Amino acid sequence: MKVSQSFIPTLREVPADAVIVSHRLMFRAGLLRKLSNGLFAYLPLGLRAFRKVEQIIREEMDRIGCLEMKPTVVVPGELWKESGRWDGMGQALLRFKNRLDGDFVITPTAEEAFTAIVRDELSSYRQLPLSLYQINTKYRDEVRPRYGVMRGREFVMKDAYSFHANDKSLDETYQNMGRAYRQIFRRCGLSVIPVRADSGAMGGSGSEEFMVESDIGDNTLLLCKSCDYAANVEKAECKPDFSPRFSADIAKAAAASTPPIETIDTPQVKTIEELCSFLKTGAENFIKTLIYRAQNVEPDLNGMEAAAPIPDAAEVFFAVCIRGDLEINEIKLAAALKAAEVSLAGDADVTRLSGAPVGFAGPVGLKAIPIVADFSVTSINDGVTGALAKDLHYKHVAYGRDFEAWLTADLRTVKAGDRCPLCGGELYEKKGNELGHIFKLGSKYTQSMNVSYLDENGKSLIPTMGCYGIGVDRTLASVIEEHHDEDGIIWPITVAPYQVVIVPIKYEGAMKDAADRLAEELEGEGIEILLDDRDERPGVKFKDADLIGLPYRVVIGDKNLAGESPKAEIKGRREKESRLVELSGAAAELAGMIRTELNSQ
Amino acid sequence: MKVSQSFIPTLREVPADAVIVSHRLMFRAGLLRKLSNGLFAYLPLGLRAFRKVEQIIREEMDRIGCLEMKPTVVVPGELWKESGRWDGMGQALLRFKNRLDGDFVITPTAEEAFTAIVRDELSSYRQLPLSLYQINTKYRDEVRPRYGVMRGREFVMKDAYSFHANDKSLDETYQNMGRAYRQIFRRCGLSVIPVRADSGAMGGSGSEEFMVESDIGDNTLLLCKSCDYAANVEKAECKPDFSPRFSADIAKAAAASTPPIETIDTPQVKTIEELCSFLKTGAENFIKTLIYRAQNVEPDLNGMEAAAPIPDAAEVFFAVCIRGDLEINEIKLAAALKAAEVSLAGDADVTRLSGAPVGFAGPVGLKAIPIVADFSVTSINDGVTGALAKDLHYKHVAYGRDFEAWLTADLRTVKAGDRCPLCGGELYEKKGNELGHIFKLGSKYTQSMNVSYLDENGKSLIPTMGCYGIGVDRTLASVIEEHHDEDGIIWPITVAPYQVVIVPIKYEGAMKDAADRLAEELEGEGIEILLDDRDERPGVKFKDADLIGLPYRVVIGDKNLAGESPKAEIKGRREKESRLVELSGAAAELAGMIRTELNSQ
Repeated sequence: MKVSQSFIPTLREVPADAVIVSHRLMFRAGLLRKLSNGLFAYLPLGLRAFRKVEQIIREEMDRIGCLEMKPTVVVPGELWKESGRWDGMGQALLRFKNRLDGDFVITPTAEEAFTAIVRDELSSYRQLPLSLYQINTKYRDEVRPRYGVMRGREFVMKDAYSFHANDKSLDETYQNMGRAYRQIFRRCGLSVIPVRADSGAMGGSGSEEFMVESDIGDNTLLLCKSCDYAANVEKAECKPDFSPRFSADIAKAAAASTPPIETIDTPQVKTIEELCSFLKTGAENFIKTLIYRAQNVEPDLNGMEAAAPIPDAAEVFFAVCIRGDLEINEIKLAAALKAAEVSLAGDADVTRLSGAPVGFAGPVGLKAIPIVADFSVTSINDGVTGALAKDLHYKHVAYGRDFEAWLTADLRTVKAGDRCPLCGGELYEKKGNELGHIFKLGSKYTQSMNVSYLDENGKSLIPTMGCYGIGVDRTLASVIEEHHDEDGIIWPITVAPYQVVIVPIKYEGAMKDAADRLAEELEGEGIEILLDDRDERPGVKFKDADLIGLPYRVVIGDKNLAGESPKAEIKGRREKESRLVELSGAAAELAGMIRTELNSQ
Repeated sequence: MKVSQSFIPTLREVPADAVIVSHRLMFRAGLLRKLSNGLFAYLPLGLRAFRKVEQIIREEMDRIGCLEMKPTVVVPGELWKESGRWDGMGQALLRFKNRLDGDFVITPTAEEAFTAIVRDELSSYRQLPLSLYQINTKYRDEVRPRYGVMRGREFVMKDAYSFHANDKSLDETYQNMGRAYRQIFRRCGLSVIPVRADSGAMGGSGSEEFMVESDIGDNTLLLCKSCDYAANVEKAECKPDFSPRFSADIAKAAAASTPPIETIDTPQVKTIEELCSFLKTGAENFIKTLIYRAQNVEPDLNGMEAAAPIPDAAEVFFAVCIRGDLEINEIKLAAALKAAEVSLAGDADVTRLSGAPVGFAGPVGLKAIPIVADFSVTSINDGVTGALAKDLHYKHVAYGRDFEAWLTADLRTVKAGDRCPLCGGELYEKKGNELGHIFKLGSKYTQSMNVSYLDENGKSLIPTMGCYGIGVDRTLASVIEEHHDEDGIIWPITVAPYQVVIVPIKYEGAMKDAADRLAEELEGEGIEILLDDRDERPGVKFKDADLIGLPYRVVIGDKNLAGESPKAEIKGRREKESRLVELSGAAAELAGMIRTELNSQ
């Protein structure tokens, strides 16, 4: 392809709203243009790289027997009502009515569409397992789209859905997907951090995120300095610096030598900090109690230690206790309660439920609502806590003796400096962006959407499901985030829009002839080339070549063409120095190098 | 690919709402499923064929230097307001607001998006011509989607847009596109009827439609029995059975021997039929006059013979005259008036403007509104027409003597039996579906959206544009419409989802071994195969093979495997009889045949 016949509008200046490297470089190198906030058009060069990422994903999906389909981008709202997500999804789901007043969504993910299709065709266990995917346009109505295609409104996602007769089969496909994902990111030249939802120490993982490190990442990751533990802060665990007690009897016994509970006057003292300085002690001696409101709590607590049945209401309040130096992780709390959402109760509710102004809530004597305690609380034998009355606290509070929780769980937010749950090493933090996610869905959709099949014995059963996504735009942008220097992009050979740029110093005379011949020879070898035939100064062409960042550059100049054996100058984009090669063998040599690199992927 | 590992749910019964062959077969062969009215999911087999059509289109676009891009499916409404189509497009344009109250559309075509991108990058004539395309999801909010993907709501279209410094350059690209389109449809195995907007006899055509014959076609085509003239009835011309007069003087001279105009009583006689029987004469002697309302008439009439400047208003009324035996083609009328839309005036307006009840309008003495006459009227020397008063008509009316038109034009609806404008042969009608359309847009968008470039002399000019569309889904469905029999689809080799189906009579023992080996050999030759490994009766497998319609079927049975030289049975899908070939050479032979067929495309 000749540059003059393509459409590669490079820019010297940086667009004002482009704050991250990939956004800047995608605009500057002429890969992308903006149509509106969060809506971007891939120009020809950008689309070539985009399609290569797509194709890598497609090959790896096909390899594990996942079958490509193409449902629609516009999906009937009826399906979303069946699954329950029509109401559950919030405003990021773009709903609209068509001219006949029908409800539709522009699909952000496609559990409903795939489940509906499989529902209609599935009859026998012999059809399972079944894995299907699409690579298709998605839309999420982001309030603040930013960072270019890293967080756009419209994007392309590979989303796969698998259907299984049993957990073993789901587990197999889940493992295959995990391997395929590692392979995809490796082929794209990306260093991903696979982040499992649980530590892996507790058996089968139900979810794994594939993160890349990024200063502007949406996610906080906790990584171990000593082993390969990596977790999203939303779900990170840590080695407890206390011994969790699962039995109130053990706790009671441990409190045998604790003095009896005692009320203390704490006028005007409400926060943990104020209490610490008032009582001249550390925050680890306090039992912090916060009142939470939880939405749509599921009654089934799945083996958790719950002392009483959960109240059956759409909105329920809980008192949540944690050691004073720790923070509550609301995602863990919601998961422990199987709640759709949790949020701190307002002052009025706190006052009503604790019988005291804000700042004096505590678990001792609290009857109005169930108490949920982080494991850290269960080892407190002699603590301080609010006394459910203005300006009063209790001291010598012992878990198991003075109060018991309705539910105990791991609720703490893990932070840098905490200990690795696997090896005890020190954890540190990184920001990360999620490129992919694999997830065991279970029967959430197959149940709500009434999918069933007959097993060997003719019994009707509900299949179990997995879902597996990769953001194509994000993956492409992340390649640039990882592979660039101050001059521009440095494409990995697998994703490069073209593999070679040929730069004649001037596109005329012998240089034009040599450039044209080399281009033809390389194309004959199946190599993708860009030929800079523009009437520009060599400096401009070199700057653009570095900016666009194709893996190899061949410069053809008069001086090197002169003499008995004409030569050309080859330089890898990562290399500092170029080297001279005989022009006659240049195509074969380059093609050989490129094929070797591609085959090693 | 083994059938058991794919997802090809074939059906014996026909879905109730599938009334055309392609819709029925796409469902029965497991290519397609319905998500909602007008919204369809391609299953794996269907998607393979779909992608092949896409790829053929892509290759032919790339070949003529058209560059692929990828704008978004969701497009900001602002761009549509700039172009004027936000208001002009009607309800088929799906508009919606996002959560921030921004206006958006799900794009049915992308003139705006491409024009906006080019506007921002275009500066010099040296960048022109520039041709860009996308193959992407489109949405049209059809009130009555039907015929499967032939008229769906969501569909995929290849749409290309070209930008030019002058008409000659536009014409070159337009011609190249026309050739590429012929090549695309030929490679897909489709017999298309290229339909030009004008006869071609009058020089440069501004629009060409590529139609396939179809009983359920949206378009009526007029074709010549003697030459290759083909036109959409919307724009069809015919050889006049009168001599059009472009000068009122000639008309006046021709009326020299006509008796003077005379008023006749025609009580209760309003229609042409009633007049014919009242006056005992033929409809060809009447001047039919209809009052039309026209929206947004453009003042520039582009060389048409207009006797006076057009009224400058958003809505204008016209009296439109045509010979009594002919019908007015409203599309031609709108084009002649350069109006956005024309429609018959209501009774109240007719009475107000003609000064008489409905049925007595006529051109003689009409002052209130401009008269527009079909060419047929200009050769009437002695006709009958309404006299602008109740129960009165005029006879002996002569064009040029008794009235003149403000504008004369070809306004008649051509019908079967009329004469070909090129050769005079008889025209006949067919129904057709439009698969593609190429169109010279001119500066409609570049002007309204303020696109400009500097020419050689530094002068700022507005580029001219062309646009070029192909419906991918429709093209695929049309392949099936043209290539099937009562048993199923008969795929052309170029578009077939796989090229060969291998059917072992039973997938076990020697037959399994032979089938696996043949599959492996064929795949080694680069042939795409489906291996029917299901535990089904041979009859079921044969029926499915015919239904799915891959170009070649290889049957492997115990009987033919026995003996010294094991054989397999090869049958082309179009052929009635199979033939035996040595199994050892079967792969090479089949691969050779398939490659020859593909290369001959």
